[in-house]
Amino acid sequence: MTYEAINFGKKFGLFDEQWQPKVIAEMNDYQFKLVRLQGDFIWHDHKNTDETFIVLEGVLRIDFRDGAVQLSAGDMFVVPKGVEHKPYAEHEVKLLLIEPRGILNTGHVGGERTAENDVWI
Amino acid sequence: MTYEAINFGKKFGLFDEQWQPKVIAEMNDYQFKLVRLQGDFIWHDHKNTDETFIVLEGVLRIDFRDGAVQLSAGDMFVVPKGVEHKPYAEHEVKLLLIEPRGILNTGHVGGERTAENDVWI
Repeated sequence: MTYEAINFGKKFGLFDEQWQPKVIAEMNDYQFKLVRLQGDFIWHDHKNTDETFIVLEGVLRIDFRDGAVQLSAGDMFVVPKGVEHKPYAEHEVKLLLIEPRGILNTGHVGGERTAENDVWI
Repeated sequence: MTYEAINFGKKFGLFDEQWQPKVIAEMNDYQFKLVRLQGDFIWHDHKNTDETFIVLEGVLRIDFRDGAVQLSAGDMFVVPKGVEHKPYAEHEVKLLLIEPRGILNTGHVGGERTAENDVWI
């Protein structure tokens, strides 16, 4: 039989909304999520896990309390667990996030910016 | 301070050899590895873990006992644990692999195609 690859571009064609991660695959108890970001997020951290950002299109800045990192397409960065961070994108950026299943986008902070979790496309 | 992103292209500029995965980052107990493949590999599986393939450049075919999947740049595929597979690339393909730390490229099969593990660039 022919198995089907998961294509990032095709999956991004299925949604337009920003700040709402969509799960596209799982590896053991980890999830791969696509997300569109633009503008400023809130400060948060993930107490029990690292979080991986891979930029597929656009430019992302991740602010830390003591600095920042800028990521363009073809760049990745792993935010260590417990480290406060705040993503920012002037223009829309398309990201692949990798983190354990069940992790909320706002960490333990909660509030109105918390996206629905575990939404598959 | 300014943190540095990990750039796939820059990292690929640091090595030419094929079939020798290089670790570029860790997330918890998982590793991100870049690898250049060309030609045929051996049949193998990973008994205890899924394995993620993301194609960055070129075309990869992964054969299974009951079929195959073809991946181009911007495609990903998760090979489930315990599933025998055999990567193949007619021309050199550049991949990002994601799997737990300590996984050998040949699974439990061993032999001359087994690459040195945990080599960082």
